[in-house]
Amino acid sequence: MLLEALYHRIKQNWSYAYDAKTLHIRLRSRKDDLTGVILHYGDKYGWEMTNDEIPMTKWASDGLFDYWEATIEPRFRRTIYYFQLRDREQTIYMLEKGFQEQKPAVVYEGLYDFPYMNPIDIISPPAWVKDAVFYQIFPERFANGDPGNDPANVLPWGGTPTPSNFFGGDLQGVMDHLDYLSQLGINAIYFTPVFEATTNHKYDTRDYFKVDPHFGTNETLKQLVSACHSRGIRVLLDAVFNHCGKTFPAFVDAMEKGAASDYADWFYVRSWPLEVKDGIPTYETFAFEPIMPKLNTENPEVKQYLLDVARYWIEEIGIDGWRLDVANEVDHQFWREFRSTVKSINPDAYILGEIMHDSMPWLQGDQFDAVMNYPFTNALLNFFARKTTNAEQFSYAIQAQLASYPLQITEVAFNLLGSHDTARLLTLCKGHKESVMLAYLFELTFYGAPCIYYGDEIGMEGEHDPLNRKCMEWDPDKQDRLLFSFFQNAIRLRKQYRALRTGGLRFLPQASKQLLVYERWDDQDRLLIIMNNSGSTAQYGLDITSKEWIDIFSSHANLLKNASEIPAYGYLILKSLKH
Amino acid sequence: MLLEALYHRIKQNWSYAYDAKTLHIRLRSRKDDLTGVILHYGDKYGWEMTNDEIPMTKWASDGLFDYWEATIEPRFRRTIYYFQLRDREQTIYMLEKGFQEQKPAVVYEGLYDFPYMNPIDIISPPAWVKDAVFYQIFPERFANGDPGNDPANVLPWGGTPTPSNFFGGDLQGVMDHLDYLSQLGINAIYFTPVFEATTNHKYDTRDYFKVDPHFGTNETLKQLVSACHSRGIRVLLDAVFNHCGKTFPAFVDAMEKGAASDYADWFYVRSWPLEVKDGIPTYETFAFEPIMPKLNTENPEVKQYLLDVARYWIEEIGIDGWRLDVANEVDHQFWREFRSTVKSINPDAYILGEIMHDSMPWLQGDQFDAVMNYPFTNALLNFFARKTTNAEQFSYAIQAQLASYPLQITEVAFNLLGSHDTARLLTLCKGHKESVMLAYLFELTFYGAPCIYYGDEIGMEGEHDPLNRKCMEWDPDKQDRLLFSFFQNAIRLRKQYRALRTGGLRFLPQASKQLLVYERWDDQDRLLIIMNNSGSTAQYGLDITSKEWIDIFSSHANLLKNASEIPAYGYLILKSLKH
Repeated sequence: MLLEALYHRIKQNWSYAYDAKTLHIRLRSRKDDLTGVILHYGDKYGWEMTNDEIPMTKWASDGLFDYWEATIEPRFRRTIYYFQLRDREQTIYMLEKGFQEQKPAVVYEGLYDFPYMNPIDIISPPAWVKDAVFYQIFPERFANGDPGNDPANVLPWGGTPTPSNFFGGDLQGVMDHLDYLSQLGINAIYFTPVFEATTNHKYDTRDYFKVDPHFGTNETLKQLVSACHSRGIRVLLDAVFNHCGKTFPAFVDAMEKGAASDYADWFYVRSWPLEVKDGIPTYETFAFEPIMPKLNTENPEVKQYLLDVARYWIEEIGIDGWRLDVANEVDHQFWREFRSTVKSINPDAYILGEIMHDSMPWLQGDQFDAVMNYPFTNALLNFFARKTTNAEQFSYAIQAQLASYPLQITEVAFNLLGSHDTARLLTLCKGHKESVMLAYLFELTFYGAPCIYYGDEIGMEGEHDPLNRKCMEWDPDKQDRLLFSFFQNAIRLRKQYRALRTGGLRFLPQASKQLLVYERWDDQDRLLIIMNNSGSTAQYGLDITSKEWIDIFSSHANLLKNASEIPAYGYLILKSLKH
Repeated sequence: MLLEALYHRIKQNWSYAYDAKTLHIRLRSRKDDLTGVILHYGDKYGWEMTNDEIPMTKWASDGLFDYWEATIEPRFRRTIYYFQLRDREQTIYMLEKGFQEQKPAVVYEGLYDFPYMNPIDIISPPAWVKDAVFYQIFPERFANGDPGNDPANVLPWGGTPTPSNFFGGDLQGVMDHLDYLSQLGINAIYFTPVFEATTNHKYDTRDYFKVDPHFGTNETLKQLVSACHSRGIRVLLDAVFNHCGKTFPAFVDAMEKGAASDYADWFYVRSWPLEVKDGIPTYETFAFEPIMPKLNTENPEVKQYLLDVARYWIEEIGIDGWRLDVANEVDHQFWREFRSTVKSINPDAYILGEIMHDSMPWLQGDQFDAVMNYPFTNALLNFFARKTTNAEQFSYAIQAQLASYPLQITEVAFNLLGSHDTARLLTLCKGHKESVMLAYLFELTFYGAPCIYYGDEIGMEGEHDPLNRKCMEWDPDKQDRLLFSFFQNAIRLRKQYRALRTGGLRFLPQASKQLLVYERWDDQDRLLIIMNNSGSTAQYGLDITSKEWIDIFSSHANLLKNASEIPAYGYLILKSLKH
């Protein structure tokens, strides 16, 4: 038994309350090392009357490790516990104080302790996010609904984007196309920033309380949110609180008055005056970008200002949550107060941080509900777009992620396949639409809140910024309507089967290197998903008959009759008739 | 290279800001597996102009693992990084996204990221605690200074304690013996509860705003705190916020009026009425103790009440911090607000949680400054008292603990060798005073805030509660004055050499099984500590001469001249003359 590979530490993803009654306990071991794990647990003040044991399930694996899990319901909201580990040769007991060969004689010292399941500490993201399908809109490029508010230098719709040009997209444009979004089937929109700013992306805020005049007015946004709500579509705005823009009045004042400014302490100033020296601003910024001065979120005035912003758009305009830009560079303490403020107004508001990395420190229940799941993105891009991993490696990457967060975090993760910050999926797939479909199909049959980047559903392409921010294509002849239908159907399927959203997940042994096979199930349904991520026909080697399974979604006709064969880039979703 | 043993995850004890400029980065590897680790790091927005590399130091080891550490000062308060690992055969690169054999070509994806060193998030315990030597007083048993406030059923001082009897100890008694405490050399007192309650231990609070009449008045406490402060002694009180007593008015009201009580929601009620059924209270309690109803700290009224208590004793009485009883059973959210409240009044207040286990989730800067370090206690008891471990195993237990927390947590850990909740050290040592001395000498030459349980310094004995709560022995003839001198001198030594408090620590290879040898050093001094934890003379096998070293504290005369030999249970502290 490889003791060095065994890992457990209280809280985080290793032991957590899933709800008021249920505790999940997890353990990591070397891959294929253990034959079984038993969790022994009981009340620390009444072990004799409460203690029990339960076999743990090997519920995930990656290239190096197996992950074991047990679900228990402690009678008095607290438990102490230890693990009994078995391999072919021996039994070892794992306690907080270390390993031992004998079953612990005294249980009150040295065991792991989950001291209390206090309701307020339980990670409880809004339930609606588990059923959400997001659509990301970059407002300057989605649709121009009101030419009256166009910037002076507006270009004809559909031109080539540069970092600084404008095409006149606005909120009225979104309003005009809500039918389109409803037809697609999405039920949530994430807007990149809409507040007044100088750039086309609006990440350099001038006025946090005002919709950019080129996009409309606060009233337009309010009407749009209301129109969305009446269609069952929720709305998320982008909170750019890490930094403001160079035209933000407090920064303008500090630029003008220097250290004497009333706003001098709103920023992190290395030296006065505020200027750029040898390419480095004398004040902290986002990256080294002079037009984006970092806000001092520890300053109570700044904090109050930004919390008022957070409050205003929820209370006055009715938005359903915030996406937090550059979320991991702002202090934890600010986010804790942000969460209190937001949740006190709307407990169902979704708080989504932009973090590209492992984000456990922000996902402990006191800060964010979720992060933009870029590790998920990378795993899918490597497999479906770049083809640099095989199905087994892909399944390991996904399982490692599942193991790294509590389940309720996974259930509301914001899963994306591209954004205004990345090249478009179709471009990464070198124009190969079947790969795009497989990638989105995985996203739409996985846990979390899947997001579609505007235009991906009709086959738009684009390299990195600025080409990933092209004008939405509204000419039906230039839209890929077959691709659109695929998205419609895949979304409909996700809505129909709860198992695809929150059911169990299991990858089956891969019959060939690019063949992905996995199951999703809940108490209602058992679904089997088969994807051939290669250019050759593949055998999936499962004994599947039409007596037991029904084809509910597939790339080709009669796949189920085809003797376990699946064409190049084909997909097949089967529903069990015997579940 | 054993990849399964390698561990790093951002924040917690693995990457943290030690101060506004300094970042500590740690890595775990299989014991004796790696020959070297290099940390590569740089700014994520300006890698080219900032990137650097630094060899990591193998700074701790236990039975299974080595722990590596690097200290860096990122130029712009943020860094991305990866590890280059070498063993005798190969070089492997470890990134957040996984292991690879090639040096990362693109550094902007998949590296570890410490996104920002925001000052407010930096764990910053009060500096004074690093220099504190605590003394724990159980007020009912320390000294009876005012017979006028004795309980009606008071017994003569020095009788045998039972769970329910009284001996009349009080705050005046402490006041009367401040000279004694100053002579001993301690500079901080931790009092178990002093608020009005029915029991002798006062953990069943009746009135959180009132000193128990048998102990004195609020005014007495204020005078005592003031007298302590004038001697440079700080005062910590016990905050019993997990539960109240059965005579607490809110609970009395809920008992009387049931669900109709205005205080019904102050408690966690499983079913009304409040009673004990089949041995289990119908309301949540500490353990299953009916006289200690658990307080609903999520109820805003309860929260406000307790925060007012926290505030009152600091503002009005001047105490220097709180020890939090049963701290891990109260919700994290309460403790975050508790911390804000307490630190807003006195940023130097010490917040000390009672947790017997690994306590990382409470020590992230947002809740406690420290916990009562019972894992430290257990390691010392196993080695010095029970003799169930050898010096190497002991050093592993200590090093594993060092590795499990940020350094600033270690520097203010509350290190104890016994308390009102454990058998006394001398008793666990079966009356063997030399072992007591060695254990306390380790405590007093280690990081953190050492604590002496009242009476240990004069040789008091006592099994578990109630016998560990005997009346303090004030008859000089019955006090072990030699032992007292030892404590005086050891404390004086600790005060004299900063290296013993916050210097580096290194265990030297053990020359024999019960021989403990370790170094402490800082820029001023280098000290070598040698302890023989056995009944036979031992050779410490170091080439030590009086030209290079001077004996500054030892159990026997002329040890330095004795050719590397140390008598049974002897100790020797040497100071380098060449440092």
